[in-house]
Amino acid sequence: VRLAILGFGTVGQAVARLVLAQHAGTLQLTHVCNRGVERKRVPWMPDGVVWTDDVERVLADRPELVVELMGGLTPAREHVRRALESGASVVTANKQLVAHHGAELLELAGRRGVELRFEGSVAGGVPVLRAIEDGLAADRLVRVAGVLNGTSTYILSRMEEGETFADALAGARALGFAEADPSDDLTGRDAAAKLAILSATALRRAICCADISCRSLEAIEPIDLRYAAELGCTIRQVAWAELLSDDPRDDTIVAVVRPALVPRQSPLARVTGSQNVVTVEGEFGGETAFFGRGAGGAPTAVAVVSDLLAIAERRGRPRAAASTPVASAVSADYSAPHYVRFTVADRPGIIAAVAEAFAAQQISINAVLQHPGCPSARLPFVMTLERCAEARLDAAMDAIAQMTFHVQPPVVLPMVEPSRGAV
Amino acid sequence: VRLAILGFGTVGQAVARLVLAQHAGTLQLTHVCNRGVERKRVPWMPDGVVWTDDVERVLADRPELVVELMGGLTPAREHVRRALESGASVVTANKQLVAHHGAELLELAGRRGVELRFEGSVAGGVPVLRAIEDGLAADRLVRVAGVLNGTSTYILSRMEEGETFADALAGARALGFAEADPSDDLTGRDAAAKLAILSATALRRAICCADISCRSLEAIEPIDLRYAAELGCTIRQVAWAELLSDDPRDDTIVAVVRPALVPRQSPLARVTGSQNVVTVEGEFGGETAFFGRGAGGAPTAVAVVSDLLAIAERRGRPRAAASTPVASAVSADYSAPHYVRFTVADRPGIIAAVAEAFAAQQISINAVLQHPGCPSARLPFVMTLERCAEARLDAAMDAIAQMTFHVQPPVVLPMVEPSRGAV
Repeated sequence: VRLAILGFGTVGQAVARLVLAQHAGTLQLTHVCNRGVERKRVPWMPDGVVWTDDVERVLADRPELVVELMGGLTPAREHVRRALESGASVVTANKQLVAHHGAELLELAGRRGVELRFEGSVAGGVPVLRAIEDGLAADRLVRVAGVLNGTSTYILSRMEEGETFADALAGARALGFAEADPSDDLTGRDAAAKLAILSATALRRAICCADISCRSLEAIEPIDLRYAAELGCTIRQVAWAELLSDDPRDDTIVAVVRPALVPRQSPLARVTGSQNVVTVEGEFGGETAFFGRGAGGAPTAVAVVSDLLAIAERRGRPRAAASTPVASAVSADYSAPHYVRFTVADRPGIIAAVAEAFAAQQISINAVLQHPGCPSARLPFVMTLERCAEARLDAAMDAIAQMTFHVQPPVVLPMVEPSRGAV
Repeated sequence: VRLAILGFGTVGQAVARLVLAQHAGTLQLTHVCNRGVERKRVPWMPDGVVWTDDVERVLADRPELVVELMGGLTPAREHVRRALESGASVVTANKQLVAHHGAELLELAGRRGVELRFEGSVAGGVPVLRAIEDGLAADRLVRVAGVLNGTSTYILSRMEEGETFADALAGARALGFAEADPSDDLTGRDAAAKLAILSATALRRAICCADISCRSLEAIEPIDLRYAAELGCTIRQVAWAELLSDDPRDDTIVAVVRPALVPRQSPLARVTGSQNVVTVEGEFGGETAFFGRGAGGAPTAVAVVSDLLAIAERRGRPRAAASTPVASAVSADYSAPHYVRFTVADRPGIIAAVAEAFAAQQISINAVLQHPGCPSARLPFVMTLERCAEARLDAAMDAIAQMTFHVQPPVVLPMVEPSRGAV
C-alpha cells in the first residue's frame, strides 16, 4: 500500500524509520512532503521516494495512505481535506486538528468511503482510542480522565522534590520538554484538546474544546505539594469528562482541566516525566487504566503506524462508522471535595470569617491544616472541604476575596475521589 | 446476528444481560445451553430463546456466533471444535482451553473462514489482547509481564497488613475470591495459562503452558512483606515472558511465574484486590501498561461482548490472520537481582559460609538486613543479591541447604527491575 508522509519532523522521521525497518512488506513509502524539503533529506531514505514541498504533487500520484504530521490547523486542515477527497485514507497525530475539525473530517471520510484515524493525537504511544473503541465497545462509558500533558507532569514532579515553579519550568525547557511558549501546557489548553478527542471517542459526545474550562497550574507552590503529601495525595494536571445523567437526551457533559489533588493510590497519581495515563469508567466493566509514553517520536510513530496497518488490512472496506458523537454543551458544574490554601497576615477571627463564608454556601469544612514555624505576617494554612459544587465554592471564594487579611490570593484545587468503579 | 451461549454461570448470565440491555439491535440471543438447563432458567430472558442441554441441538440451528463459557477442557474443546466446523465464529473466556488448544482452534477457524476470539480469557475486563494486536501492531514487543491472579494479589495484600498466609487465604475463601481448591492460584498454574496466551499474542511465540516454571507463594511470611517494604518494594505473583535474543531464529523464550519483589513505583506493584495489570515493552514504544478488573461477571462480559461486536461488524470477512505464533521452547534461565531470607539458629560464621557459597557461583551480595530483637534460636535475616542467573543461584542454594544452621528453608524471590523502557 503506497504511503505519503506530510510533515517530516521528529515524528515523521520516526514513522519513516519504523515503516522501513518493520513494515516494508505492507507499506511502501512513496512521498515525503515538507516545506523547504531539501533541508529535510536524510541518507537512509530509499531511492525512488519523492521529496517535495507540494502537496498537490503528492496527491496527483494517488497514494492510498497519507500521514499528516505537520501540526497546527493551517494548512493541515486543508491538506487533510484534499487527501480525503482524493480517495486516500488519512492518519494524523495532530490533536488540534482532530479536536477542532474531527467531526467534519470524519464525515468527509465516511462520505468518500475512506478512513481517518488519529490514535497518535492523544497520549502518544498509549493505544487508548483503540482500546476504548474496540476492546471496551460493549460497555457504556460514563467517565474519562487523564493526565495528558508531559510538561505539567514534569514540573509538578520537580516541585514534589521542592523546586519552585520557575526553576521546574526552566528545567523542563532545558530538557526540551517544554515549548518555547509553554502557555498551552500550563493553562491546560493542550490537555483540553486531547480531552475533546477522548470525550468524542469514549463518551460519544462531541464538544468544542474552546468551551472546556481550564485552570492554570502557575499558582501552585512547593508548599502545596507538601500539604498534598500530608493528605496522602500528589498534584497533577487532570483532565476529565463525565456524563451528567443517565438520560441520553441530556446533552450537557462536564469537561474540565484542573490542577488537582490526586490520591497516591489513584492511577492518575502514578505518572512521572512524559508518561500519560488515561482512565475510563464503564457502567459494566468498572475502571480501566492505560499507561505509557505520552510523547516522543518513536512511541507516537507506533500509534501512527498501527493505524496505518489497520487501514491497510481493511483496504477497500473501511470500518463501519461508529455512532456519530452527539454534539454536546460543556459544563464545569462538577462537585468534588476541595483543597484551599490561604496565605494571610495572621490575626484573630480569620478562620471564623472564612468558615462563615463557606457555611453561607452550605459547604462543610473537613479539616484545617497548618505547619508550625511560619511567620505570622505571611501565614499559610489549608482547609479541606467536603464535596461541593465548584460554582458554590467560587461564590464563597468571591466573598472571601473581599476580606482584608490575604497576603496573596488563595489557591483552590479540587481533590479527585477514588473511582466508584475502582476495585 | 444470532448468538448462542454455552455455559450459563456468572459470566454467561452477565453476557446475556449486557447483550439484552445494550446490544439487542446487533446481537440476537437465540440459545442458552447448559447441563441441567432447567435449574438455570431466569425470568428476565425473552420468550423464544431456546433453553437446552444439547449442544448439537444448538448448532443444528446454525447460530453465527457461539460464546463458550463452560470452562475446563472437556467438553469445551470438542464443543468449540464442533461450533467452528459448523461455520460459527466463537468467543471464549476459557483460559485453559486457549492456553492448551488455542493454536489448533485458531488454525481450524482460519480454515473454516470464521473467527475465534478470547479477550476475556486474560485479565478479565482489561482489553489487553486487543490493545496488543491492534494498537501496538506496529511495534516489536520484546517482553510481557503481568499480575494475573486475583487470589494471590488478595493474599499478598492482606499479608502486607500483617496477616499470616493461612489467615489471608481463609479470608479469600470467605469472600469467594479463592476456589475451594486454590492450588492453581497459589502455585502459579492459573497465571501460567494466561501467560501462555499473552506470549502467543504479544511475542508471537506459542509455548506449552505446562512447560512454564512456576513457584508457589506458600513459603512467604508477613516478615517478607516487611523486608520488602524496607527495600521500597512489595511482593506480587508476577508472570513474565521475554525474548532471549534479537535473533528471530532463536526459538527459546524465558517464561516464568514467581512471587517476586516489585518496586513500589512499578505498575506491577500497583494492583490490589482483583485488579490485574499487564505491561508490555516494545522496541520502539517503550513500556505500556493496562490496568483493570481481572475477574467478575460484568467486566469479563464486557470483554466477551466486545469480541462479539467486532466479529459482527466484520461478518463474512474475518480479520486477516496475524502471523502464526512460532512454536517455541520455554526456559526459566533469566537473570535478576534476588532476595533471600534465611531463618537460622544463630552462631558465628553463618554469613561467612553463605557468602562463600554465593562467591563460588560468582554471585555478589548487595546488602544484608536484619531486624533487631529476634530470638537467636530462630533468627531471620535477609540478603539481597546482585543480578544473577537463577540457575546459578539455585546451585548456590543447593550448597547452602546442606549447612546445618537452618531452622526452616530459605525463601528466595527475584526482584523485578524497573523496565528499561520505563520513563
